[in-house]
Amino acid sequence: MTFSPPVPRDDVDSAWLPPAAFRAVGAGRTLVRGSGLLVDTVHGEVAAACERFGGRVTRDAGDGPYDLVLELSDAAGNAGLGEEGFAVGREHGTTTVTATGERGLLYGLFHVVRLGPGVLRGERARETHRPATALRMLDHWDNVAVHPVMGQVERGYAGGSLFWADGRARGDLERVRAYGRLLAACGVNAISVNNVNVHETEAHLLTDRIGEVAAIAGALRPYGVRTHLSVSFAAPIVLGGLPTADPLDAAVRDWWAGATRRVYGVIPDFGGYVVKADSEGQPGPFAYGRSHADGANMLAAGLEPYGGTVHWRAFVYDHRQDWRDRTTDRARAAYDHFTPLDGQFAANAVLQVKHGPMDFQVREPVSPLIGAMPGTRLAVEVQATQEYTGQQRHVCWLGPMWSEVLRFRPQGDAGPAVGELARGGLVAVSNAGDDPFWTGHPLAQANLYTFGRLAWRPDADPGQVLGEWIALTHPGAPGEQAAGLRAVLEGSWRTYEKYTAPLGVGFMVQPGHHYGPSVDGYEYSPWGTYHFADRDGIGVDRSAATGTGYAAQYAKPWAEVYESPAGCPDELLLFFHHVPYGHVLRSGKTVIQHIYDTHFEGVAEVEEARRVWAGLADLVEPARHARVAQRYEEQLRSAREWRDQINSYFFRKSGVPDERGRRIY
Amino acid sequence: MTFSPPVPRDDVDSAWLPPAAFRAVGAGRTLVRGSGLLVDTVHGEVAAACERFGGRVTRDAGDGPYDLVLELSDAAGNAGLGEEGFAVGREHGTTTVTATGERGLLYGLFHVVRLGPGVLRGERARETHRPATALRMLDHWDNVAVHPVMGQVERGYAGGSLFWADGRARGDLERVRAYGRLLAACGVNAISVNNVNVHETEAHLLTDRIGEVAAIAGALRPYGVRTHLSVSFAAPIVLGGLPTADPLDAAVRDWWAGATRRVYGVIPDFGGYVVKADSEGQPGPFAYGRSHADGANMLAAGLEPYGGTVHWRAFVYDHRQDWRDRTTDRARAAYDHFTPLDGQFAANAVLQVKHGPMDFQVREPVSPLIGAMPGTRLAVEVQATQEYTGQQRHVCWLGPMWSEVLRFRPQGDAGPAVGELARGGLVAVSNAGDDPFWTGHPLAQANLYTFGRLAWRPDADPGQVLGEWIALTHPGAPGEQAAGLRAVLEGSWRTYEKYTAPLGVGFMVQPGHHYGPSVDGYEYSPWGTYHFADRDGIGVDRSAATGTGYAAQYAKPWAEVYESPAGCPDELLLFFHHVPYGHVLRSGKTVIQHIYDTHFEGVAEVEEARRVWAGLADLVEPARHARVAQRYEEQLRSAREWRDQINSYFFRKSGVPDERGRRIY
Repeated sequence: MTFSPPVPRDDVDSAWLPPAAFRAVGAGRTLVRGSGLLVDTVHGEVAAACERFGGRVTRDAGDGPYDLVLELSDAAGNAGLGEEGFAVGREHGTTTVTATGERGLLYGLFHVVRLGPGVLRGERARETHRPATALRMLDHWDNVAVHPVMGQVERGYAGGSLFWADGRARGDLERVRAYGRLLAACGVNAISVNNVNVHETEAHLLTDRIGEVAAIAGALRPYGVRTHLSVSFAAPIVLGGLPTADPLDAAVRDWWAGATRRVYGVIPDFGGYVVKADSEGQPGPFAYGRSHADGANMLAAGLEPYGGTVHWRAFVYDHRQDWRDRTTDRARAAYDHFTPLDGQFAANAVLQVKHGPMDFQVREPVSPLIGAMPGTRLAVEVQATQEYTGQQRHVCWLGPMWSEVLRFRPQGDAGPAVGELARGGLVAVSNAGDDPFWTGHPLAQANLYTFGRLAWRPDADPGQVLGEWIALTHPGAPGEQAAGLRAVLEGSWRTYEKYTAPLGVGFMVQPGHHYGPSVDGYEYSPWGTYHFADRDGIGVDRSAATGTGYAAQYAKPWAEVYESPAGCPDELLLFFHHVPYGHVLRSGKTVIQHIYDTHFEGVAEVEEARRVWAGLADLVEPARHARVAQRYEEQLRSAREWRDQINSYFFRKSGVPDERGRRIY
Repeated sequence: MTFSPPVPRDDVDSAWLPPAAFRAVGAGRTLVRGSGLLVDTVHGEVAAACERFGGRVTRDAGDGPYDLVLELSDAAGNAGLGEEGFAVGREHGTTTVTATGERGLLYGLFHVVRLGPGVLRGERARETHRPATALRMLDHWDNVAVHPVMGQVERGYAGGSLFWADGRARGDLERVRAYGRLLAACGVNAISVNNVNVHETEAHLLTDRIGEVAAIAGALRPYGVRTHLSVSFAAPIVLGGLPTADPLDAAVRDWWAGATRRVYGVIPDFGGYVVKADSEGQPGPFAYGRSHADGANMLAAGLEPYGGTVHWRAFVYDHRQDWRDRTTDRARAAYDHFTPLDGQFAANAVLQVKHGPMDFQVREPVSPLIGAMPGTRLAVEVQATQEYTGQQRHVCWLGPMWSEVLRFRPQGDAGPAVGELARGGLVAVSNAGDDPFWTGHPLAQANLYTFGRLAWRPDADPGQVLGEWIALTHPGAPGEQAAGLRAVLEGSWRTYEKYTAPLGVGFMVQPGHHYGPSVDGYEYSPWGTYHFADRDGIGVDRSAATGTGYAAQYAKPWAEVYESPAGCPDELLLFFHHVPYGHVLRSGKTVIQHIYDTHFEGVAEVEEARRVWAGLADLVEPARHARVAQRYEEQLRSAREWRDQINSYFFRKSGVPDERGRRIY
């Protein structure tokens, strides 16, 4: 019944929960009412804060008055708060947080922390808060065994894994608890603990190594975070010794039912499975002539009795495409594969769709699949780990990009936004690891925080979320510091876009590791990621009239908007159209001059951000300042490399000189 | 005193020493005269052949007559044969092989084997044979521990190492003996057993793990092959615990002297050291402000009392070049670094120079350094392992290329050939590994054999050497088989050249592993390997008048030949000059049409070779035929990929259509 939050450690950054963020709560008198595991957590959090700041906390009943009351209550006025919502208000000198579910109470506490000292002053009208979606999840692409190419964490840029090290459980459950606490404080309630590419060692987490998963689940549970597992579709063969993994085979279905029952035997609140099937070499139902609905529904059937969910990824495309074949379009693949299956997925099967049709590029249109599956629960997946956006060596705050995606309305202004269509949840590939700053680049913490907050409320203003993160992470910071942090973060995504692949064309990265420029790196590859630049022009014709027809996968008005170069937004022009270098953008510039200008501007913006950061030297904690300063050196070097390679490539190809006569090699 | 050659094994191909090659020798009566370790080998070889084919062999004296006499003799007529030469003749029904040195006798025996049954018939005027150079060496780029990127064998395409496996000695000394036997049969007399990039584990071979090297040396010794070791210039620090590796520091010199003395204590005929210093990240004398002569001479001093040699590689260049900088030219580097040191190297220090100025491309000019070091013993290094020539998945017989290099006369027709200038020896990076066929691709055995024979006699006709290899490897083969083998091998280097990087421009390979095309793969890299293609033209201006001045590193007439596009041979045009796509070659074709034509031709030639090979199905041993047939599928796939990428790239860039209207993507 007593709970102690993780003790702050010198070797781990406190991120958006520094002790000082609890100053107001910890200095006051608090009553916690209700019972349950998470109410214990709430009590323990307040008690630890009081220990530090001299306040006191009472459980269930005592002698008031109280500055803060946190209570579970089924009173009629609370109907509709659900499992995770809460209400907060202040009158007669007492701030009251009310929830009907335990998780709601925990989120209410962190809301109070977020509001800062003002929350315990004056009056405050009662407000209710509920998350837009019940599942707000982080997928960890962590390997248990170090993969010979991908390492401990696939696309990880934050040290090792929080959970696994060199084939074993890492064993630092205190760190896992601290992670769960950070997640709860930004609203994340689910986590998948291993890579969607399930290799041999990792396959065993489902069966003989489930105890290691249970230990993680136990550490996360007090913070309301449920644990999920990525599984191999071939598990009945690999682990069960069956001759097939056919999802309609009775023995296979029995095997999964039994395996799932045993999982729930040790993890009663287990969240479910994440599956990457028939994708980039992973096994799947196609091998047996079955559909993805057949595959997902079989797993869903095993999970259903226990309230679990299967997250079935829609990232299915031909990764052995012939670059000579211009009729195949990878961007079309998810829509083509999955829309025929709409309505066939079980109620506890969620189709997990990447936000764009390709693969987490700095600029993509919203996946047309998201608006085209009314009879299917969809989860939308974004990528916090910066695979294509600077790998946590560059500052690239993704809040504005995610916000644009979540606010996008696939059926036009009258229809719902992506944030509303994602009934199955919002998922981010985590950017956290065992790095002392959690995310490699200290400022990349802002991405993790922003994801959680946007998952809770997809229509939130990302700039306001950024302000929250700045204030929480640097409590008591002078305005100059906050302004500096905002200055270097707020526009960083657009800056990154400027100095990398232009106008939505994507890729142009080094093959394999995806860091740094290589304009033709994927041009003659089997991956379906081409720009088709020649001496006359560049871009992929995805129109219905003359191209691959991808634009027609959208409903109106978007199908029309994207169909013509005249209607298409500049930033997506080369995603949808092949145009001459002299094509005039809506901005009034030619494509080629836009390329030159943005690449010079992008580097200048990095130089400016580095300058601003240097000016914060006396205001930011030295270790953090030094690490960021060091990464700015690399970001600037890399941005210049991008600028010079992209500009040189297109100058050599187009022969068009820069109007402003700047240096191109 | 008795010696048995390695027993033929089912799991190891017999290469150019199948038992049947010894039929004539094994069926006759042979006398072996003389004593010594290698005379025992000669006797053992003949005895084993007699065991198989019913002949008999007598040692030193017996009752003639003999079909074959193999004798060590100091008779006056043999003066000048040296340690390795031999004389062979036949009169009165007896073929006599005479040598003054044991190795000469062994080479004489293998010469008899090579000559086939005819050698024991009729009369034969006495001929003498002596190698052109005393050192004919294979460098193995084998790692002891598996390197995380480069694997067990750096640039190895023939399975694992013959010597090392996963951190330990492989332990199959019978296989090492069989390897030594093959080497002796083609004239190779030295081997370096570990990678020139000396990593941590491998550094210890010099000291505490020298016993493992001694075991290899013991297995190779009966076949006249001396063992050498690649060492780290930083060994005094890494192994000796000294604070410096400064070659002029007395403690460092003492350390090397002591280490070398201990090596000779266990390997009395140890060949010496191979050193890659100040190259691609390896440590070297530059760190101490010393010259490469200082570094080499220090090691030479340690080796000198024991007759050992240091092979100091001249592969020194800036591998962190800025691609934007067009004044630096990697091709110039070896000449610029080493010519000022001419005359400063000790007598037992050999400067080991790659045959071309870059890195084993399919076409390079001969390194200008080779003609510019009259006061230095030079060894010329070629690459049998097909790093840039198809990685033993493509047939690419390198005999004609090596022959062109060895016959090249840096001072013009009146001067010596490269084969004569290589007083320090000829060295090949080995293409052999623990693969059952030794070389991955069975036909790549021809490269290993050809190297040995050309090292013995650099002015030999490579076509004749190829005929030897074909006859030895496939004894008793019908003429159709021999003709087929010649057809698929003889022109294979030029075929490979046709479908890969054109006109001497080099590279255009996938970065890192170097297999398959990527035209811009190294274009914006720090490696100094650029083609500078733009929409108007392509090539590197290395002229003295307007370019990097590299052409002026040659003596006349070559400096003049290479200086102008008009004088430069077509096949090197883009190595020396940047020309428009419309530039007319000496062949009468434009550069762009040449690119298209050769790429279509190259693929057609592979298709034809595959057809020829398929026709040999009933004539070639099935396992060998199947492996080659399978590799032809990959070669053809890869050749088409090269053709289409190269043609598409240059069509997109130049906009010039193919005159013949063939398909370009």
